[in-house]
Amino acid sequence: MDLKQYVTIVENYPKEGISFKDITTIMDNGPVYKYATDQIVEYAKKVGAEIIVGPEARGFIIGCPVAYALNIGFAPVRKEGKLPRETIRVEYGLEYGKDVLTIHRDAIKQGQKVLIVDDLLATGGTVEATVKLVEELGGEVAGCAFLIELSYLDGRERLKGYDVHALMKYED
Amino acid sequence: MDLKQYVTIVENYPKEGISFKDITTIMDNGPVYKYATDQIVEYAKKVGAEIIVGPEARGFIIGCPVAYALNIGFAPVRKEGKLPRETIRVEYGLEYGKDVLTIHRDAIKQGQKVLIVDDLLATGGTVEATVKLVEELGGEVAGCAFLIELSYLDGRERLKGYDVHALMKYED
Repeated sequence: MDLKQYVTIVENYPKEGISFKDITTIMDNGPVYKYATDQIVEYAKKVGAEIIVGPEARGFIIGCPVAYALNIGFAPVRKEGKLPRETIRVEYGLEYGKDVLTIHRDAIKQGQKVLIVDDLLATGGTVEATVKLVEELGGEVAGCAFLIELSYLDGRERLKGYDVHALMKYED
Repeated sequence: MDLKQYVTIVENYPKEGISFKDITTIMDNGPVYKYATDQIVEYAKKVGAEIIVGPEARGFIIGCPVAYALNIGFAPVRKEGKLPRETIRVEYGLEYGKDVLTIHRDAIKQGQKVLIVDDLLATGGTVEATVKLVEELGGEVAGCAFLIELSYLDGRERLKGYDVHALMKYED
């Protein structure tokens, strides 16, 4: 299946000059959504994932069914203040300013093999922050999986030393 | 399986006097997360769901694996500005002030049977707003499913005439 034909390109979103890759037209098509998810399930098996970690909110859309399919857990990474119990936090740079991501302190067990899942690998800032959270909790990052990689933004460079897998790549 | 034993009660979150029901301890436990999801999958089959609709972000956590299990689509309901293409919107009241939810205009087909899924039925404001969005697009609300219902907040009253299913109920 050529997944790219189900991605909708939205020009000038969220701002002028950006060619946004909209995955909602993958998700609202049952067999396509299942096919995409199953590709990541296969990768998760290959790297021996024991738990899935995904940043809100689009990381949930792909990561949760992967966890379900494998009968393993899912641990959410959320913006500050959104998780109710004791968390650890990491600041990461955005284009302008900073943001903070958090994870529950008890979300991951020491030595647990973690697959990080998100919809999109762009500059890699969110994933790099998520890797830091996982490792601070003693988890082992077994891999990072994405529906889409924007290769020209070099996110893979920031994830050097980690196994990175993307179902679709865009060169521009 | 008694799902309640996997819910963590967090006192005074998000504010004084609230006894928050934290479901992350369901999600990070693979077999428990799968069991809970499968209960909603069974309900979805019973009501003949053809697509799942869930409000961000916790609606994604339950709704997405349900869609995956049934090989049907998932359409996200998000805060204003978060969906890239043409949307419809609904305002709904919060305790103080208003908020807006949106859905893509092409997310649901005329007459499609929709199951709305969220983690929690509290006062019902979010679900009521989601029902409005679905019906404005010509969808038929086949049911509303939740992990948890806070019965004492009477959310079910606002959903009169709709089929409502919750895996766990709390009376106070």
